[in-house]
Amino acid sequence: MYNRPLSGTIKHLTLDSALLKGNPLGDPHIRTFPVYLPPGYDDSDQRYPVIYALAGFTGTGLNMTGFAVWEESLPEQVDDLIAGSGCPPVIVVMPDCFTRLGGSQYVNSTATGPYEDYLTDEVITFVDGELRTLTERERRGIIGKSSGGYGALTLVMKHPGLFAAAACHSGDLYFEYAYLRDFPKAVDALNQYGGVEGLLKEFAGATKKGLLIPALNIIAMAAAYSPEGNQPRLPFELPAGELVPEVWERWLAHDPVRMVEQEPFAEALRGLKLLYLDAGDRDEYALHLGARIFIERLKALDIPYHYEEYSDGHFGINYRYKVSLEMVAKALG
Amino acid sequence: MYNRPLSGTIKHLTLDSALLKGNPLGDPHIRTFPVYLPPGYDDSDQRYPVIYALAGFTGTGLNMTGFAVWEESLPEQVDDLIAGSGCPPVIVVMPDCFTRLGGSQYVNSTATGPYEDYLTDEVITFVDGELRTLTERERRGIIGKSSGGYGALTLVMKHPGLFAAAACHSGDLYFEYAYLRDFPKAVDALNQYGGVEGLLKEFAGATKKGLLIPALNIIAMAAAYSPEGNQPRLPFELPAGELVPEVWERWLAHDPVRMVEQEPFAEALRGLKLLYLDAGDRDEYALHLGARIFIERLKALDIPYHYEEYSDGHFGINYRYKVSLEMVAKALG
Amino acid sequence: MYNRPLSGTIKHLTLDSALLKGNPLGDPHIRTFPVYLPPGYDDSDQRYPVIYALAGFTGTGLNMTGFAVWEESLPEQVDDLIAGSGCPPVIVVMPDCFTRLGGSQYVNSTATGPYEDYLTDEVITFVDGELRTLTERERRGIIGKSSGGYGALTLVMKHPGLFAAAACHSGDLYFEYAYLRDFPKAVDALNQYGGVEGLLKEFAGATKKGLLIPALNIIAMAAAYSPEGNQPRLPFELPAGELVPEVWERWLAHDPVRMVEQEPFAEALRGLKLLYLDAGDRDEYALHLGARIFIERLKALDIPYHYEEYSDGHFGINYRYKVSLEMVAKALG
Amino acid sequence: MYNRPLSGTIKHLTLDSALLKGNPLGDPHIRTFPVYLPPGYDDSDQRYPVIYALAGFTGTGLNMTGFAVWEESLPEQVDDLIAGSGCPPVIVVMPDCFTRLGGSQYVNSTATGPYEDYLTDEVITFVDGELRTLTERERRGIIGKSSGGYGALTLVMKHPGLFAAAACHSGDLYFEYAYLRDFPKAVDALNQYGGVEGLLKEFAGATKKGLLIPALNIIAMAAAYSPEGNQPRLPFELPAGELVPEVWERWLAHDPVRMVEQEPFAEALRGLKLLYLDAGDRDEYALHLGARIFIERLKALDIPYHYEEYSDGHFGINYRYKVSLEMVAKALG
Repeated sequence: MYNRPLSGTIKHLTLDSALLKGNPLGDPHIRTFPVYLPPGYDDSDQRYPVIYALAGFTGTGLNMTGFAVWEESLPEQVDDLIAGSGCPPVIVVMPDCFTRLGGSQYVNSTATGPYEDYLTDEVITFVDGELRTLTERERRGIIGKSSGGYGALTLVMKHPGLFAAAACHSGDLYFEYAYLRDFPKAVDALNQYGGVEGLLKEFAGATKKGLLIPALNIIAMAAAYSPEGNQPRLPFELPAGELVPEVWERWLAHDPVRMVEQEPFAEALRGLKLLYLDAGDRDEYALHLGARIFIERLKALDIPYHYEEYSDGHFGINYRYKVSLEMVAKALG
Repeated sequence: MYNRPLSGTIKHLTLDSALLKGNPLGDPHIRTFPVYLPPGYDDSDQRYPVIYALAGFTGTGLNMTGFAVWEESLPEQVDDLIAGSGCPPVIVVMPDCFTRLGGSQYVNSTATGPYEDYLTDEVITFVDGELRTLTERERRGIIGKSSGGYGALTLVMKHPGLFAAAACHSGDLYFEYAYLRDFPKAVDALNQYGGVEGLLKEFAGATKKGLLIPALNIIAMAAAYSPEGNQPRLPFELPAGELVPEVWERWLAHDPVRMVEQEPFAEALRGLKLLYLDAGDRDEYALHLGARIFIERLKALDIPYHYEEYSDGHFGINYRYKVSLEMVAKALG
Repeated sequence: MYNRPLSGTIKHLTLDSALLKGNPLGDPHIRTFPVYLPPGYDDSDQRYPVIYALAGFTGTGLNMTGFAVWEESLPEQVDDLIAGSGCPPVIVVMPDCFTRLGGSQYVNSTATGPYEDYLTDEVITFVDGELRTLTERERRGIIGKSSGGYGALTLVMKHPGLFAAAACHSGDLYFEYAYLRDFPKAVDALNQYGGVEGLLKEFAGATKKGLLIPALNIIAMAAAYSPEGNQPRLPFELPAGELVPEVWERWLAHDPVRMVEQEPFAEALRGLKLLYLDAGDRDEYALHLGARIFIERLKALDIPYHYEEYSDGHFGINYRYKVSLEMVAKALG
Repeated sequence: MYNRPLSGTIKHLTLDSALLKGNPLGDPHIRTFPVYLPPGYDDSDQRYPVIYALAGFTGTGLNMTGFAVWEESLPEQVDDLIAGSGCPPVIVVMPDCFTRLGGSQYVNSTATGPYEDYLTDEVITFVDGELRTLTERERRGIIGKSSGGYGALTLVMKHPGLFAAAACHSGDLYFEYAYLRDFPKAVDALNQYGGVEGLLKEFAGATKKGLLIPALNIIAMAAAYSPEGNQPRLPFELPAGELVPEVWERWLAHDPVRMVEQEPFAEALRGLKLLYLDAGDRDEYALHLGARIFIERLKALDIPYHYEEYSDGHFGINYRYKVSLEMVAKALG
């Protein structure tokens, strides 16, 4: 029937962040997030490799531990892998970099907060202090899906000293296809509700939020990629929706497909023990094309990688963690 | 941003069931399910009214405690109500009557197991022994959504001595509209996979289970409403799909719209302190029509009720618990 | 590129009907409908077999001659078959039995008009007078799709002396699956617009009529199958939507699956030179199941038939005429 | 019920084109297209203003005369306007600029043929010779929907001496939103079928062509906007789908939003007696945003226009012709 109980355990850590205090969105600076501890953790002094697992847009670490019949959560997947043969025991940290816009893209932004610093500085230091992690770079990995995959991929580019392995599932790549398609929907919704403030207010009060997600997504990306002071600068003008090229260029500068063309970022990827990517071959945001375009860059730059394309779309693909978790755990083990 | 921490607490109870031992589907007889305890529970000797909350098809009690940004879980809703003014503190029990077919409809069946007895006998006795519940009928309520609403409604009809208040959200009512529409899809899927066994095998192995849910639903309902020995008797013949009237009649005998025409069941409903029903006015299974047809029976039989019809469909309607939880808690308080 | 010009010709006939004069819906009694004449018709005195082609719901004969790039219209199909080898030349008549409710189901009804008589009496007599048809029953066939398939199938049952071959594409069969599914949508729309009159008024004025088609369809079927005087009697009560069994039984009496159990109708089908049926294997109205259930009746009653099930749904299947037209033409030739 | 008969008449003209002879796609150079003649045409020597009506992608003039119950075809609309008061009688020409790729965009292309010249030179000359048109520029208008709207708008820019009034319904404007969204779907389909040739072959043989239309559309646009010799140059590389900026720039040069920034084109629009545009406010290709962006250009360039935005999408909007036909006819009358 449904899933067997965990052999390991889930523990919740609470971090009072100095960096997030006073963030412009008024989001909490005290955050509780789950960590998975492998079986035997409590009965030994052993130290373990650690994998940071980053949630996608509209999600946070807490979502990853939810129960669903017939579907293994991320902790259940890693637990099952460890219970089998061959996958070394690891700690998995599911941090909280959520914002009330739906996410932070794991970047520092004057419009949301210093989430990149929060994760790479405060969270890692805190976790290494609270848990028996192996603290060397060679024993630390990072994975994620969708915006979490984007986070994993860009953080290993920007912080080569921190992570030795990365997995990017259906990550935000090639923004021309990934984001541009939703601009008209966002324009219509923003016009309907009177701009960013109006839409956020509508969203907060809506019983059914789903229809507003495309617009919220564009606001969140603008807050991450093109902030102006403490506000998102939209990449188009209202009400007609015409693109503003200089703002759009700021977005594109955050596209891993462009970032990797900067040699320090390429060098960072070359230094990984494992760079894993995958995507469903009918991803609704064309992220399989994004992945292929990125792979072509990797080839041209002599960057090793492992890429899998499988038959599916962008949603309901949590089961893919099981592939990356094992590979990353082995790379770190 | 997202939800505040609970003032109350969630505790998990584990019950080793004598009744479910050896059930025909081989489902676990030892089950862990969550209960919500109101703020102050641990610091006093107070006893509290108790509400049983029944999950819908493909769900179980554990699903009700999952975290979602921007959406209050059932425990969060009741916690918020109690924190406000006017809603008396209650215990909420979220039992597990799941089966590997997706659910039990909370009935006894030779094809699934004695889930009605399990809930009304074992679970209640166990809960009353483990927790400081008020154990009189006047202090016990039952609610649910979809198949859980069906369960709540039929259990108060069949067990008038156990519950004093009930809430049925979008419950399975008027089977002609609720189920018949999915028979052709089920016929096609059953033909494709070689009957019940083949479909269940396909389902077990499928990465994407969603497309098979309509067929699974029909199998589960057949197991609940028209078992033959330890097997579900389908209400149609394969491969053509023609209805088998005598089997379909067995289903209809379980339809609350028909059940209520039996005076003992009507009398049971008359004895409730609260009978709450609601439905979205564009329910994909026409359960708003089912509710209206049921209400017409209630009127004719002089059975008091409270009915609300709101603008929504069948999915994403967890927010409606907040309406019923307060009314039921007050009725019991 | 697109289709070659016809070798035959399309001619329009206009019939002033005595039977339709004063029909209760106020629909025209003078109607113009197209006929296809095979190549060489004008240069000879030859007489030809004739096939009556019946339009589906919301369609009429005139729709069958419309031009579409990349798709052969019915006249283009028969023209192409005749141009090839093996298909004998035939006349095809595309009559107009439309009503302002969307169709007549080719039955006599006090709520719409005597469309069955109109077609089998007036139209055939008129056509045989205007065109050089072969007028013996052995040289007359009838085909149709959806409601037109229903018409073809029921008219050969009821008028064994008129037609010697019939083809029913995705015809309305097994009403429990074909119609019942749309009752809730119809109930909602009828409630929204204030009943039959209100809905018809809304429909008449609507720029986008598509959303109202399911309700219109149910009204039209009620007008055909369960008229009361000059009004359709709906098979459910408003506003709740509960079925009215005695009205629903009147519908079922028109279901070919039931009709065929009457020996005169079975005998009529046994007397056909060809009884062709087909359906797409994912028909949205489950008409493939309807066809299979009907076929089982045919087998039990020793009625010969030719059945094909192909990979498609209910819409965009005009290309299937090409299969039946050739078989029917040969049976008549 | 359905539409009254025309007061005017539809006539079909056949033109053997010297320009289209030997076109690279092997499409017919002899083409038959319908014209609408106003009531009284045959009984007088009067000359009439003439409106050219351009079909959208996958359509041609012949599609515009098709019968549909409950929907006025373009000739029925103009006929109804003329029968009413105030709309002067006009001739409407529905030319055929179709190609086997689905359309020509009414431009000259080495990959499809000189369709712009064909229309503005051969067709107009031919029509003026065959029919009693008023042949001055002040009495000639042009309208269209979707790709036909694109054609109408660009042809009046490029041929200021030919037309005095134009109407563009939901025309292809602002290619970043109108086309880019379908590139991923086109990439997937082209990969699946082995490139342009493979896809065209698949398309030719497919019973259900709809799923391949987005890819066909991109091929047709590439043939129109970025031909290389007799082949379309795709704006992306296969298999990854990355944009080729220099090809994409060739497309953008055909975008009316950019064209209008060239003073001769702006001057041509300023010289019109009427420039009508409209769009549905939830156009699936964001053409309402395209129209608004275009309007902003018009304002900045002091070009008069009439713009309407109405509640609808991109499909099923033929009824909008009735608005433009009357305005254009009056402007020419």
